[in-house]
Amino acid sequence: MYIPTFDDVRDAHERVKPWIHRTPVLTSTYFDTQTGAELFFKCENFQKAGAFKVRGASNAVFGLSKDKAKYGVASHSSGNHALSLSYAAGRRGIQATVVMPRTAPDAKKDAVRGYGGIVLECEPSTAAREAMLEEVVDETGADFVHPYNDHRVIAGQGTCSLELHEDAGPLDAVVAPIGGGGMISGTCLTMSNLSPQTKIYAAEPKNADDVYRSVREGRIIEDDAPQTIADGLKVSMRPRTWHFVSKYVADVLLVTEEEIAEAMYLVWQRMKIVIEPSSAVAIAAILKNHDLFAGKRVGVIVTGGNVDLAKLPWMKAA
Amino acid sequence: MYIPTFDDVRDAHERVKPWIHRTPVLTSTYFDTQTGAELFFKCENFQKAGAFKVRGASNAVFGLSKDKAKYGVASHSSGNHALSLSYAAGRRGIQATVVMPRTAPDAKKDAVRGYGGIVLECEPSTAAREAMLEEVVDETGADFVHPYNDHRVIAGQGTCSLELHEDAGPLDAVVAPIGGGGMISGTCLTMSNLSPQTKIYAAEPKNADDVYRSVREGRIIEDDAPQTIADGLKVSMRPRTWHFVSKYVADVLLVTEEEIAEAMYLVWQRMKIVIEPSSAVAIAAILKNHDLFAGKRVGVIVTGGNVDLAKLPWMKAA
Repeated sequence: MYIPTFDDVRDAHERVKPWIHRTPVLTSTYFDTQTGAELFFKCENFQKAGAFKVRGASNAVFGLSKDKAKYGVASHSSGNHALSLSYAAGRRGIQATVVMPRTAPDAKKDAVRGYGGIVLECEPSTAAREAMLEEVVDETGADFVHPYNDHRVIAGQGTCSLELHEDAGPLDAVVAPIGGGGMISGTCLTMSNLSPQTKIYAAEPKNADDVYRSVREGRIIEDDAPQTIADGLKVSMRPRTWHFVSKYVADVLLVTEEEIAEAMYLVWQRMKIVIEPSSAVAIAAILKNHDLFAGKRVGVIVTGGNVDLAKLPWMKAA
Repeated sequence: MYIPTFDDVRDAHERVKPWIHRTPVLTSTYFDTQTGAELFFKCENFQKAGAFKVRGASNAVFGLSKDKAKYGVASHSSGNHALSLSYAAGRRGIQATVVMPRTAPDAKKDAVRGYGGIVLECEPSTAAREAMLEEVVDETGADFVHPYNDHRVIAGQGTCSLELHEDAGPLDAVVAPIGGGGMISGTCLTMSNLSPQTKIYAAEPKNADDVYRSVREGRIIEDDAPQTIADGLKVSMRPRTWHFVSKYVADVLLVTEEEIAEAMYLVWQRMKIVIEPSSAVAIAAILKNHDLFAGKRVGVIVTGGNVDLAKLPWMKAA
């Protein structure tokens, strides 16, 4: 199992720069006052394809040799990785094929097609999507780019905190949401090299607390179809991301569905930016644990802004 | 009637700088592709108190002599001017009193109070609010800061396009929404001095087309209780703003309620920023008249981001 190094992150940054935005780092008087911390929001909601995932996907796509690239790329994803892989493949002029659960929102499927990707629908189970993906790879010879358990993807996600560190200066802590662990792994990889004293916190929905339990038990525990509005965080870790989580993460902070919705609402209302529920998980965790962060310089990875504007969490409550 | 000069804008900028954000100028590949223009979005939705109005209000508040300031400031407004005046007065440590229609959203009234302002409720008519305002001024000696028919306010709003011009470079056109005309007047004042070749377009809801009709008839025509989701644009011009509109505005572009809602949705979805319906009027006008702007460098004033997140236009349609 190849574990990416910080040199891989540096290489990834050079490789993906032409295809991604250098997203801004925003501050907020309101949230600083609420938490007592100095917060630096790395806004990947403004990223190409609407999420940080384009960093890892672009690193994989543009790192392929010409000979390999001609067979295209493939993956399974119900969300942002599907969009990102299609975007990156489209830019390189190669085919992306994405296996998506038939229950995924039509808007997401349409967006993948809009970037030129092929959508194959499967039953919404891990077994079904892995079986269909295997078929695709066998038939087309496409390169499988796993959403997070891929050294190229982890190195790509590591470019996010590289920019955050350059733009915000030294940080006492970085908080990012965790699903499969790609972003957290990249963050650990980068910060452990650039700023080893910076503590990395993973924020997780209580309703999908597999990472919390994994860290306590010392082994990967998988969730069984968790229900959370943070739809990007339902998946479980794999060996490459567990490597980084078990080695570098200071703690896993849990938040409830209500806390996620409330944090999302506050960010929209106060910062005037559109963020998705998964991103709100990190902010909810900081609001909840403000004693932990008060007086500290804290980076927050705002992972994405792809949200169905017609189905907002506070609508259900109303 | 004192008409402000460009020197007043320069002075205003120095005066308000410590109290406002220098808001970013954003670009969007999506909207450039849709329109064929190169668009520069001046994002006053990120401004203090959530809208450009804080520029004019701060210029008035911080321009008062000590002797005058001690009696406080007063105005009538159902929206962003009320918030902005309260914010600015709070920063200077003086009292703001705002007459608001009893039908204004509670969230707005609470926000005014949150900044330390006093809210006086009146019946929702021009006569009622002007009568109550007069009483307040008589009793308190407060300085009346009109939301737009005030030379200090117009000079303050002119600082917005000053920054836009500095950050975006030479522009062929600037498009801003128009209600009472404060922002458009400030824009005309600044651009006619800094860049006389830049055309200024006012964007207006078809349902509140008093400016469109005024320009055609050559005199101020007032709307009679217009119904539009662009709630910041319901008011009519006054002599100081008519001065600038009649002299400098290249054209008034009308858009329907559906076009406003659609543009607002697209901006949230594609740019991941929260803008209010009034701001969407300018973007709707550019989308609708893309032939007019194709191939041009166009500034867009995104006037504010204060919107009730529980009542979004596309919710009604769903």
